Amino acid sequence: MTWILKGFTEPSPLHDFLAPDSIAIVGASADPTKRGYKAMVGLIKDGYKGTIYPINPKADMILGIKTLPSLEALPEAADLALICTPATSVPGLLRECGRKGIKGAVVLASGFRETGRAEGIQLEKELLEAAREGNVRVIGPNTSGMFNLHKKVNLLALANIKAGDIGFISQSGNMLLSLVLEAEHNGHVGFSTYAGPGNQTDIGFNDYLRYLGEDPQTRVATLYVEGFRDGRRFLDMARQVTEMKPVVVYKSGATEQGQKAAASHTGALAGSYEMTVDVLRQVGVSVVQNSDEILPVAEGLGLLQQARGKRVAVVSDGGGQATIASDRLAEAGVELAQISETTRQRLAEILFPQASLANPIDVAGTSDADPSVLAKCMEIVAEDDNVDTIFLVGMFGGYYLRFAEDLLGGEMRGAESMIELWRKCRKPLVIYSLYEAIRPPALRRLHEAGLPVYASLENAVRVIAALGERGIFLAASHDKKIVPAAAPRPELQAAFATAHDQDRDLLEYEAKTLLRTHGISTADEVVVRSADELADVAARFGERALVMKVVSKDILHKSDAGGVKLSLQGEAALRDAYDQIMSSCRAYKPDADIEGVLVTPMARRGLEVIIGVMRDPIFGPVLMFGLGGIFVEILKDVTFRAIPLSRYDARSMVEQIKASKVLKGVRGEAAVDKEALVDLLLKISSIVEAYPELAELDLNPVILYSDGYAVVDARVIVDRPGAGPREAH
Amino acid sequence: MTWILKGFTEPSPLHDFLAPDSIAIVGASADPTKRGYKAMVGLIKDGYKGTIYPINPKADMILGIKTLPSLEALPEAADLALICTPATSVPGLLRECGRKGIKGAVVLASGFRETGRAEGIQLEKELLEAAREGNVRVIGPNTSGMFNLHKKVNLLALANIKAGDIGFISQSGNMLLSLVLEAEHNGHVGFSTYAGPGNQTDIGFNDYLRYLGEDPQTRVATLYVEGFRDGRRFLDMARQVTEMKPVVVYKSGATEQGQKAAASHTGALAGSYEMTVDVLRQVGVSVVQNSDEILPVAEGLGLLQQARGKRVAVVSDGGGQATIASDRLAEAGVELAQISETTRQRLAEILFPQASLANPIDVAGTSDADPSVLAKCMEIVAEDDNVDTIFLVGMFGGYYLRFAEDLLGGEMRGAESMIELWRKCRKPLVIYSLYEAIRPPALRRLHEAGLPVYASLENAVRVIAALGERGIFLAASHDKKIVPAAAPRPELQAAFATAHDQDRDLLEYEAKTLLRTHGISTADEVVVRSADELADVAARFGERALVMKVVSKDILHKSDAGGVKLSLQGEAALRDAYDQIMSSCRAYKPDADIEGVLVTPMARRGLEVIIGVMRDPIFGPVLMFGLGGIFVEILKDVTFRAIPLSRYDARSMVEQIKASKVLKGVRGEAAVDKEALVDLLLKISSIVEAYPELAELDLNPVILYSDGYAVVDARVIVDRPGAGPREAH
Repeated sequence: MTWILKGFTEPSPLHDFLAPDSIAIVGASADPTKRGYKAMVGLIKDGYKGTIYPINPKADMILGIKTLPSLEALPEAADLALICTPATSVPGLLRECGRKGIKGAVVLASGFRETGRAEGIQLEKELLEAAREGNVRVIGPNTSGMFNLHKKVNLLALANIKAGDIGFISQSGNMLLSLVLEAEHNGHVGFSTYAGPGNQTDIGFNDYLRYLGEDPQTRVATLYVEGFRDGRRFLDMARQVTEMKPVVVYKSGATEQGQKAAASHTGALAGSYEMTVDVLRQVGVSVVQNSDEILPVAEGLGLLQQARGKRVAVVSDGGGQATIASDRLAEAGVELAQISETTRQRLAEILFPQASLANPIDVAGTSDADPSVLAKCMEIVAEDDNVDTIFLVGMFGGYYLRFAEDLLGGEMRGAESMIELWRKCRKPLVIYSLYEAIRPPALRRLHEAGLPVYASLENAVRVIAALGERGIFLAASHDKKIVPAAAPRPELQAAFATAHDQDRDLLEYEAKTLLRTHGISTADEVVVRSADELADVAARFGERALVMKVVSKDILHKSDAGGVKLSLQGEAALRDAYDQIMSSCRAYKPDADIEGVLVTPMARRGLEVIIGVMRDPIFGPVLMFGLGGIFVEILKDVTFRAIPLSRYDARSMVEQIKASKVLKGVRGEAAVDKEALVDLLLKISSIVEAYPELAELDLNPVILYSDGYAVVDARVIVDRPGAGPREAH
Repeated sequence: MTWILKGFTEPSPLHDFLAPDSIAIVGASADPTKRGYKAMVGLIKDGYKGTIYPINPKADMILGIKTLPSLEALPEAADLALICTPATSVPGLLRECGRKGIKGAVVLASGFRETGRAEGIQLEKELLEAAREGNVRVIGPNTSGMFNLHKKVNLLALANIKAGDIGFISQSGNMLLSLVLEAEHNGHVGFSTYAGPGNQTDIGFNDYLRYLGEDPQTRVATLYVEGFRDGRRFLDMARQVTEMKPVVVYKSGATEQGQKAAASHTGALAGSYEMTVDVLRQVGVSVVQNSDEILPVAEGLGLLQQARGKRVAVVSDGGGQATIASDRLAEAGVELAQISETTRQRLAEILFPQASLANPIDVAGTSDADPSVLAKCMEIVAEDDNVDTIFLVGMFGGYYLRFAEDLLGGEMRGAESMIELWRKCRKPLVIYSLYEAIRPPALRRLHEAGLPVYASLENAVRVIAALGERGIFLAASHDKKIVPAAAPRPELQAAFATAHDQDRDLLEYEAKTLLRTHGISTADEVVVRSADELADVAARFGERALVMKVVSKDILHKSDAGGVKLSLQGEAALRDAYDQIMSSCRAYKPDADIEGVLVTPMARRGLEVIIGVMRDPIFGPVLMFGLGGIFVEILKDVTFRAIPLSRYDARSMVEQIKASKVLKGVRGEAAVDKEALVDLLLKISSIVEAYPELAELDLNPVILYSDGYAVVDARVIVDRPGAGPREAH
């Protein structure tokens, strides 16, 4: 049974050839060092049930199978072609595939775009044209290959891969090798389908993710990504898939040093790592930060129950590791559950008096006489409503080795109880044992039942955090409704068009009009086009201190041009300021087209924040939020979400920044109006969706108050040829 | 051969009983479940060559050894007593040990201070008195035991521990068990001596560290610490030991959650984690942050060459893992070395054209034909002066499994070359292989030679970082001369004495006089005791804007009392301010003893920082430095050093804060005068050393300029009964 994702009427075309019934091997070889030989050996050894067509014009028979001189000689359209020949031969071969009706091809050769050379780039273009022409989908080029173990198709020439339900897509062949070895030696599950996307010339991560989402053999989709090519489509796909099954992503290039290393490797565009992590988490992806954690987290998400949240009960048999667990949990943002009084009483009934009944629970020697008491503790805390996840920490499984052989019975009974609890309880049991490396009988029993045991306390904590994050994400679905686009207004579209024709950005007052029109509160302001209007302006604002700024499409840096005057009161002051602005702006830029000045009351003091929108080449429009000044510039304490946002996204964005405490009021300041801020973020999302002409937006600063906010400065960059990255103010 | 540490005339007394030639086992038992039986079995099985004296008044013979009815019946003073009997019996037994001349005792029983109960605390007091009386040193109580594998003494009843040169002191028995299992299954070295300090009633971490520092069997001292009891002495000891051998510390309680868990476990006082890490690093300790990293880091520091610094050359056989390595290295503060042109040329001669010669070096397939090329690359980069550490990343050891059996020859040759390089080269070779879990022949060869191979890229990076940090620490010895204490001045000692007698802190002007007297530049200021003096004051400061603050020992919160006036110019303004301050301060606190006002020029604007000194109950006087305002309050971006400081300490302190960039000038500001700041920190260190009467000091703010600084406010808390924690301003 294959699922079909929302928005599609049929399953992914990748099913046609990722589970092929016949495979043509172009460049099949009798030389045991060649991939065209090894792939055939792999298929035959593993007992592949489909048909193999070795294509080789020179040999008559390879490994006992009759060869064909060319793809044209095929008696039928094979489902898949494995192309082992050099780069230059590939476009021609793909055309042959197309003519023959072959639906997919795996292209191993390198020598394309990734070389950075013009010939390579050109050759890749030809490859794509040839593929599109004949409607052939391409894995690679520059791929390590693919396997589908449930179909016994393994084109990687990699022996002894354990079959299971982790689907894996990796831009690094070594990373596959590493996970395969880890799964074999320390792991709990095996793999369903693997593909190396290589240069992602045709099939990208979004396509593979759709396939894994639909594939009934895959329980967890796991991806090692150096760079996305179409991040926006990946996000859209992930929104759907993460609702059905866990998606685990390791994104390399977390640092500038790593990005440089990745760029020299595959030539994939690596966006800002922080932004990438934020937008992936936004759509429910479980992002892992260390390569050591990929397999443990994927296994945990695949094998364990869902958690409702992040409140963990730790059951331990020694204080030291309970302390380490507490530290790592806190660092991972996981809290120790408040155990209920009932639970404490029930624990007290079965534990020695010196046991610690506060979480972490330390059985303090009770288990030395009967290790199965640990399972009983787990059962008790599992019934506590305050507990989302149960975490066993210590030497379970090794009591009989450490103390006395007759404890083995208690260990085996404990293991059975844990298995039973795992099956009936709707909360995850995460088990760490310092004996896991030896895998004594009780732990072997847990393994056989499919209940993972972790050999690393730190990895176990990563699993708990991932389970909690996923649980919270899934539970918040009611709050995840995307805000709809605003209805674009003709007069604003006209303002964009004019700006576009004049090759300029929106003027400040135009930008604010855009915001105001769509319900964002901005200060009362007047554009003054001649000094004669200043008397009316003075009358209108009365006693309030005013600020005056030049309005000119030719002056971007208003302060530098002497185009800003603060704290003005009364007509005389306004006239003075007007004259000074005009003369210094004319001196600054004699040919500037000066439309006038903007007059607006000075904003009250409050908390400065920055809200920005950029169109990322990979992920499309992205909203950024952070506190102003040093927080953005030095500490880079900002958060990102792909537009459009849900209320959940906007809220989590505000809470995610490290300085979020500042919003609650520090140094005697009142807390700011968080709901107004959330509303502002959502309105910006809906405006960006309504105006594709808007390339970038920069509200810097927005001042937050305990009641509402003030947008003090607004800049809107209009999408047009040559509109560069935003300039500093 | 045993070393003797500086400042001692003889080796640690712990040698007498941590390598005992005779052991009395009090509570020896014929019951196989008892420690008094298990310890004996352990000694006999391991072939202990000394004499065992089982003490048991009821049995005649245990395990074939004649028992004695009591310690008094001993024919000689045994070197060590293992006391397996309950808590209440311990003080009496220790007295017997003393009478008999037994030098050390291991006390297993719990039920002392760690219970938190009055009886336990009292019993522990009695224990200590009894021990001191007879000059018996005590390991524990509440200890897991001790072993010295080179002496074949293992009192832990833990079988199969690999002997080697890691000395380990752990407050958690489970952590020992975990490391023992890890060493057995994945490790490279074994253990020399272990002790569980338990409650540290007599022997503390500092004593154990001295012993391990002196012990010729120990190459690396490794400590799992929940809490120090005498942190100051530990720091003094570590300063000496880290110069001779690596000291690795895992400190639990990194988070509040963990501290709570630790407190419920051993009752040890856990200071601020960040402060603890800073002062440990200050004395050259290698602090590890994850429990998974303890053994790998200890092994790496023990087995590998010293690094000169943190510039690493990565040699890899695939881009994916080179990218991960680059990310993790950057996160750990390690940089990729700039490979020289000569090195690149030499690499180009032996590698395929598609190889990447920039660091990370990717051999891009060259090693698939001959894996020994990796060793050649390592040799080449090892000769590059820009390289401090060589890091091999990839599948070395597994080529013959992955590709073809005949590659085994190249792998074995490669392994031999690496071993040779390791022996002759003065730079560390850190090897990560994704095949380490399988340990194929080439990796087995490296293991046998003593060259570690890491199975985790992340752990390998931690080792590299630790090697680099240690290298930099050792290299900076010339800069690590401690600044001497200032010579205390009688008039200042008198000011402290007066304040002490009046049960108050120093007044602000007294605090500033203290600073000024010892060479710290403070603003010109005058204490005005009557309004008549204001004319002179106005004349003295001329045009400069002044600030006036009340001087009264009874008014701590000057602003709240209306006791501060800013921006005063001219005599009239000063008189006005004076009158206002007097009347509002009298209204605020009618019985306040008001000495007068302090008048000083307003400080120029600059960068605000905070410098503080506190006397930590564990580590003694500690200096704190950070940027002012939100940086301290919200971001906790501060750094600590134990006083006294060296110039190296002061410099590294300034560089360590996350916001150190701000000191270099941001948003158009000039860089601040770092040397003046370093000098200020050192002067404060020398002042604190000179005046033991100074309990706490708070300079908040100090304003830094591109030339010098201004101490704007200074508070000195005088050590006296009831001087509480410092109040907020």
